[in-house]
Amino acid sequence: MEPKELLSIIKGRRSVRRFLEKKIPDEHLRLIMEAGIWAPSGGNIQPWQFVLVREPTLIKKIKLVSPGLFGNPDALVVACVDKNRYERAGKIGYTLSLMDVSMAAQNMMLMAYGLGIGSCPIASFNKLAVREILELPDNFEPILMISLGYPEEWPQPPERRPLSEVVYVDGYGKYYRG
Amino acid sequence: MEPKELLSIIKGRRSVRRFLEKKIPDEHLRLIMEAGIWAPSGGNIQPWQFVLVREPTLIKKIKLVSPGLFGNPDALVVACVDKNRYERAGKIGYTLSLMDVSMAAQNMMLMAYGLGIGSCPIASFNKLAVREILELPDNFEPILMISLGYPEEWPQPPERRPLSEVVYVDGYGKYYRG
Repeated sequence: MEPKELLSIIKGRRSVRRFLEKKIPDEHLRLIMEAGIWAPSGGNIQPWQFVLVREPTLIKKIKLVSPGLFGNPDALVVACVDKNRYERAGKIGYTLSLMDVSMAAQNMMLMAYGLGIGSCPIASFNKLAVREILELPDNFEPILMISLGYPEEWPQPPERRPLSEVVYVDGYGKYYRG
Repeated sequence: MEPKELLSIIKGRRSVRRFLEKKIPDEHLRLIMEAGIWAPSGGNIQPWQFVLVREPTLIKKIKLVSPGLFGNPDALVVACVDKNRYERAGKIGYTLSLMDVSMAAQNMMLMAYGLGIGSCPIASFNKLAVREILELPDNFEPILMISLGYPEEWPQPPERRPLSEVVYVDGYGKYYRG
């Protein structure tokens, strides 16, 4: 694959908040989940646990407690960190596990986009309520949800701070001109 | 691009800890940085600030305070969260910013791999020392570093917990058979 093609996937992915009523094929969901588990993981602890929610009544229940969930996605991935796993990494374990799961989520959203499927990362939801709805054990903490579905339309790109504002070279104040 | 090609990039990326003495072209570093800024960002706050470290003496200094940094990479990206930005998102801002920066880092590492460049995410380093070496202001917190360089060799894939162990469907205990 040409590097430019990869960059166009990375740049083309949008956060989608309005979905068509159209089912995602099982094999595409599998590719998305598989992309997730190949994220890097500090110490290879793989602190992640994912609940793939497809049952519409469950998605509706979760939506009621999730201010950050817009539209009616066909599927939801509830990404959790597992305390029984991240504690092995000591004090830094929880922070590392947030990073690992975020990288896994990014893999999933890129894979989804590569399949023509829209996604949106959701951090604003009631963790306790979601834990109850999905009957999660105490060691599972849902930290992020990813909505999945075919977009009504692909949104326009958001404004982004340019590289010259967010990249420094060899130290603060030395702006990037690359 | 075929979805399978994207999955093979996502699955093929390895954490690289031994690098050749070979310079990364400036234009490839630019593509890597550009991939980073197209990560999703909660509320589009873009809490990230990156320091691209190329000066070998600085990399050596950082290495001395970074137990997680292996090998001699050609470049280092020191990814920071900016308190002045993430505070706009209130209480949840810091956690959101960790997620945003992790997703940006994953974009960068995938883009690097697409260019034949190895990378490794590094969370184990002395933040205060790195802040001092790079003369970062107090509102910049370095949370993650990414080493970049051409690999001596591509490592074998790590063991991964299979989907049947980490994915549940519609609730805990209902194992994925997809």
